[in-house]
Formats: sequence, C-alpha cells, structure tokens
Amino acid sequence: MTKRLRDTEHEPVAGNGLLNRRLFLEGVALAGVVGASEAAAEPLTVPQWSKQPGAPFAPYTQPSRFEDKVVRAIPPSVNPVTIGIGTARTPLHLLDGMMTPSGLHFERSHSGIPDIDPEQHRLAIHGMVKRPLVFTLEALSRYPMESRIAFVECAGNSQTLNTAQAQPLNVTAIHGLLSCSEWTGVRLSTLLDEAGVEPGAAWLLAEGADAASMSRSFPLAKGMDDALVCLYQNGERIRPSNGYPIRLLLPGFEGNMNVKWLRRIKVTASPTMTKDETSKYTILLQDGKAWQFVFPLEVKSIITKPSPGLGLKEPGFAEISGLAWSGNGRIRQVDVSADGGQSWAPAALQEPVLPKALTRFRMPWQWNGGPAVLQSRATDETGMVQPTRAQFIAERGLRGVYHFNAVASWRIDEKGQAANVFA
Amino acid sequence: MTKRLRDTEHEPVAGNGLLNRRLFLEGVALAGVVGASEAAAEPLTVPQWSKQPGAPFAPYTQPSRFEDKVVRAIPPSVNPVTIGIGTARTPLHLLDGMMTPSGLHFERSHSGIPDIDPEQHRLAIHGMVKRPLVFTLEALSRYPMESRIAFVECAGNSQTLNTAQAQPLNVTAIHGLLSCSEWTGVRLSTLLDEAGVEPGAAWLLAEGADAASMSRSFPLAKGMDDALVCLYQNGERIRPSNGYPIRLLLPGFEGNMNVKWLRRIKVTASPTMTKDETSKYTILLQDGKAWQFVFPLEVKSIITKPSPGLGLKEPGFAEISGLAWSGNGRIRQVDVSADGGQSWAPAALQEPVLPKALTRFRMPWQWNGGPAVLQSRATDETGMVQPTRAQFIAERGLRGVYHFNAVASWRIDEKGQAANVFA
Repeated sequence: MTKRLRDTEHEPVAGNGLLNRRLFLEGVALAGVVGASEAAAEPLTVPQWSKQPGAPFAPYTQPSRFEDKVVRAIPPSVNPVTIGIGTARTPLHLLDGMMTPSGLHFERSHSGIPDIDPEQHRLAIHGMVKRPLVFTLEALSRYPMESRIAFVECAGNSQTLNTAQAQPLNVTAIHGLLSCSEWTGVRLSTLLDEAGVEPGAAWLLAEGADAASMSRSFPLAKGMDDALVCLYQNGERIRPSNGYPIRLLLPGFEGNMNVKWLRRIKVTASPTMTKDETSKYTILLQDGKAWQFVFPLEVKSIITKPSPGLGLKEPGFAEISGLAWSGNGRIRQVDVSADGGQSWAPAALQEPVLPKALTRFRMPWQWNGGPAVLQSRATDETGMVQPTRAQFIAERGLRGVYHFNAVASWRIDEKGQAANVFA
Repeated sequence: MTKRLRDTEHEPVAGNGLLNRRLFLEGVALAGVVGASEAAAEPLTVPQWSKQPGAPFAPYTQPSRFEDKVVRAIPPSVNPVTIGIGTARTPLHLLDGMMTPSGLHFERSHSGIPDIDPEQHRLAIHGMVKRPLVFTLEALSRYPMESRIAFVECAGNSQTLNTAQAQPLNVTAIHGLLSCSEWTGVRLSTLLDEAGVEPGAAWLLAEGADAASMSRSFPLAKGMDDALVCLYQNGERIRPSNGYPIRLLLPGFEGNMNVKWLRRIKVTASPTMTKDETSKYTILLQDGKAWQFVFPLEVKSIITKPSPGLGLKEPGFAEISGLAWSGNGRIRQVDVSADGGQSWAPAALQEPVLPKALTRFRMPWQWNGGPAVLQSRATDETGMVQPTRAQFIAERGLRGVYHFNAVASWRIDEKGQAANVFA
C-alpha cells in the first residue's frame, strides 16, 4: 500500500520527503501505510467489556490504568537528603495538543511542596506603597478575574544541549521543563493600584511561602502590564505542586519568576538581589562574566514526534509534530527540515495561536527509509528567529545552563529510531 | 471603605448597580470593600509550612487536600441496581476560566465505564464504503492530528428549569452537564476518505463499546466537516469516563452524539433509528409531537458567580461571572441584567473567543444591599439570541427535557443569598 502514497504527484515542499500539508485535503489514501487493515463483512467481534455493565461514577476521575507510564520524569535528587529539591518533567513525548494536564505540569521546586492551609494563607503588598495591604484568599476572590493560556518554562530547560557531546536523552529528559495551562486570577496591577505605588518605585519583589523562600525581583512595568496573581489553573484551584493557593504568573518570563505559593509582593526602588537571582538564574558566559535579569524566554521550538523512543515502524507516512513558543509574543512561523537544515518548509500552526502560549505545529512527511535529521526553527511575531546551535554557542559559550533556545536535532536511522544529535 | 466606591462618579451601565467594566483601569480602590486589611510594618508572620522542607515530587499530582469538596456532583441513581447509569456533574460554581480539568469533566453514561484495553480495541469504518477498514490505536496515531478547544453539553442539561416551579438548586445541579476541553485526534473525514464513501451515502452511525452500545446517527456532511476522532483530551489520553481510548467529537452537537468508547462508524443512506434517537433524545412538544434529530445546541449562557451557595457577604463590589456558548459558532455578545431583564449591559468576553467552545464573561457590579435578579443573555455569531423562559415555553411547552437554553435567573435577597427563580 505504501506505493499509493509514493505514486501521488505531490511536489515535495522541502528535501528528504517533507510533503505539502494540503495532502489530506486532496484525498491521498494511507490506510495500508499506517497499518489499518481491510475489514471482513463483520468487521468487529464483541469484546468482554461490551458484555457487562462498566464502572460507576467517581467524584474525581483519573487516567486509564493502561496509561500508568504517562507520568512525570523525576531524575534522582542531587542530594538524597533534600528530597523536595529538583525537578519533575512533563512527558511531552506522550502528549498532544497545546494544553498540559495539571497532573503532568512540570515542577521545579527548591525545598519541596508546602502544605498550605488556604484559610491561614495571606498575600501582603508592602514596601513603597501608600497603604500596605494584606489579602486573604476570600478577599482576592472578590476582585475582577482574568484568564489567559500561557506556557511556563524553566530557565534551565534544554541545558543538556549546551554541552560538548550529545547525550542519549529523549524529549522529556531534555525539554520537559515546559508546560502550558489556562491561568485565572487577579491582575497584579489591580492590587498595586489598591496599595498605591509611591513615586520612585521601579521594581517588585515576589516571595514564595516555601521553606526556600524562593524570591525574585522584576520590573514594576511588568507588574503593571500582564502579571497575574493566579488562583486557578485549568479551571480548578492551582495544585500544591504548582503554587497552591496563589501563584504569580509573569507571562513569558523564565519559570522560577512565576513564584509559587506567593506570600508577598514588595515594591522597591531597585532589585533586591536575592539568592535566587545572584547565585542562580544568571547566564554565565564563556569569559566568566554573566548576564543578570534576562527575563523573557526567547523564541524556541521542539519536535515531539518522532523523537527518541517514538520512532518510525516502517518507511511511509509520518506526521512530524511539535511545540513552539516565545516569551515575547505569538509564534509567526515554524519551519521544519528533514535534511539537517539544508532545506526548510513551513509547518501548519494549530489555531488558536496565542501570545506567550505553546503552539502545536504539524508537518506531513514521507520517510523513505534512509537517514534523516529532523529540525524545527521558530520565528515569533517580533521577528526573532531561533538560532542554530553554532550561533548560540558562538554568543554564549558552553558554560551557561539557562535560556538555551537553539535549534535541536533528531537523527533518524535506517531502523526508524530517533536519537539526540548535534547537527 | 465601601464609601470610596460609592463616591466615585462612574456612570452605571445598566440598572441596579451594573458598572462600567473599565472601572479597574481607572484606579478605583476596593480594598476595604472586599475585606483586605491594612498591614502593620511587618505584614506577615512566618507559618509552620515555611519553616520545614515540603513534600517530594509525585509522578502524577492531585489537587490540594483542602479542595476535597471540589468534586463532581453525582445524583442518586434512578435505579440503584444499575450504578453506572446516570450523570456526574461538573462543579461549575467552584471553577473559573473556560477549561474544565479532565478529572471534573461531566459524565453521562448509559451502562457504566468499560475498562478497555487499548491494545485490543478496534475502530471499524464500514457500510457504504469502497473498502471497509479496521484501525488499531497504533494505526490511528500515525494519521495527521488536529486539536480544538470545544465544549460538550448534555442535551438534557438545565432541564429542571423547564418545569412549573423553580426548585432550590445550584449551578452545578441545574447546569453541570457542561464542560470544555482541548480535544486532539484525527479528522473523521480523513478516515472516511481512506475507506472511500460510496454514492448515495448520506448518514453515519457511531457506536460505542459500552454495554449499552450507545449509538447515534448523524449526517455525513458533519462527518466530512469538523468531526474529530479524538485520542487526547487536555493533552493526555482521554480518561475512561470520557471515552478512553477513542471518543467522537461532533463540535457543537448534543453531548450524547460525541460517542464515547467509539468502536465503529457505519456509512448509511438514512438514519439508523437507534434506541438512543427514538426512545430518547427527541424533543417532546406540548401537543405530544416530537422533534427528532435536532443536533446543534443553541446559544446559551449561565451566571456561575454569584449563584446559590456563592452569595454576597456584604454590600459593595462583586464580579458577576459566567459562561456562554453556542453549538453554531462563536459567542458575539453576552448582556447582563441585575434587575430581572429591565435593563441590560454587555459583559466583557475573555479572549480567546473560540467557535463551539465555552467563553467566560465578566461584569463588575455594585450591590447596594437590596433585592436583585441577575440574568445573562448570549448572542452568537449567527445572530441567534438566547430566548426568555416565557418565549421558550411558548414554543416548546413544559414536556420536553432537551435543549433548554432560555435565560436563567438568580434572585439575590437582602442577606446576599442567591436562589434559583423563574423571573
């Protein structure tokens, strides 16, 4: 059946088998290619589960027991005594669409997940304000709310690509500190207006109620722009692993700045220089100098399918699918290459394409059974283009671990297996 | 502090306290109104949970233990022997935003939840096709995918408003057979093209693998339009309660037609007249005649806050918030009234406003402490306007239980309590 696809006269859009994405609008049959089988007159037998009543209603449902491997990847802790310090990674290679279920949202925690009683929790706004204020959850809940779909990405995501040798890792291990949710809460600007910001104020400090007192400074301008004091994630109250009962969302800014378990916002004249913005989360350059306060995450994209562990069973049709995002706005275009960057063609972008949210892209591909190197390269609405790895390293060197956004590469071998390579 | 809001000179936009939604852009302070308190010099004490390391990483996270009342409402079964027949309702009054977490997606099941092994499950496409086909999950997964955010609403949602007397029920009990997810799968048209639809075909039959063999007929035109054979819900595989491993999504069509546990699509010349479209899911009129095959759910909206059980603590500011949707396209406008429909003003619609998806609307309100009747009235992009209850009953009578979409009313009493009323 593979022949049917090969025989069509679709002009490829780029080298090594990238196909026009209008393919399926034109009625090309793939059934044989993908392993569907022609049916007998009575196509289906009746399985046991159709012969007996099923399970009753549950108050809160869970995934199928057959999906018990779709869980977050939790690398061993650097220090086994401090079990709540580290990461849990979203299994991006097993998901599709743009949303991340809250149960699988990635987590970077600095001292575990505090067990916060929402009745006791308070949010303070103080410092250079006319009227310092303390909010209960009940008080916050009475303000006008706003929702937005936004990605959160750890500043350290993909850092294993900024090393001398490519390691045998999959999407989740390399890029899994990335998720996307609908966040709902009160605009921080509304609360700052309540407190009355004093002249001379230019920065804000956000502090979490975890034992690490995770704290970051950010410009007052961001606080007056799109910052959101969130109470809800994907419709329900935020989960403890993501900041219950209050998380700060700074759309597009590096993950750690979206402070979880938010307990106070202090209005200041200059940055507070917390441990989390001096000893960490600065971008170390090759010459030993560092960039500090680089907030928005730059334009980036990754291919999630095919990818290591999700290879191709046989030559023929495959969909190349992935995610693109930018901390500076909407994704304008994602180009895909199957020949290691020699030729490119634009992928289809799944609507809605939202600012500072994940965008799913898709590209049809005819794999001819030979070697291939798959790459994606995103451009955002500001015109920023994802750099090649060589360009990134020429600018930043190999010492930094944050804000890695260069083009990534999967090599497909003759068996259809995918591997992380530097190409 | 209430005085500060009352003293502002914002012209109301409609009767009984509806305010201009630019209120907060103009810096009106509400802190006193909503119960925030002025802070001392040291605004916060350090709680116990900030003094010790928190919990470690979990492979799949769950909501906070303090949110254990945010669960689906499961009315007692009509027949206690058949425990999987009935409904579980989304607790809409406890959620915000437009998305429903999968764990709280409503459920209407006709014979419980089958425990389907995805390795064994098959989808057949047969009937009037050139080449009947059987698909494994693996085969389906190789086709091009598409995602869309869509609501699903049970045809019988809100039927308790189509009775002679208003009952003391809350949002969830009345309207909770309504949810919204991101669905991802293969276009049904792609699969139909694979099988090759024969001349004369005009209808499709979809059948589920549950013990009830839930089955519905729908026009071939819908199958060739936006119907989606879904594998993913909100990023992860669909949960068993929502059709694992395959659910048919017919965007905008009544809930039961989005057949769960999909096992076959049969191409036919005319409707199959299954039990589920003859004994049920027809719209009974006052004269005993019935409408059959009314598929898209008409334009509708509900106020989720304030609502019964979520009253107002004291006079002052409150946000009126709710959901609007239409099976025929996008929501164009939602008008809100605080005086039982005497005067109306347009609410703010939360972007993105997507076709056949839930849209969150919000309206600021100054409750003066007197009685009020809150209503919302949606208009969709086709120009359809939600009818009043009187208009609905004049057309349909009181015998029908499906497709109730009339304007609903909450009466607010002097204590700030909300109640379901017919106004």
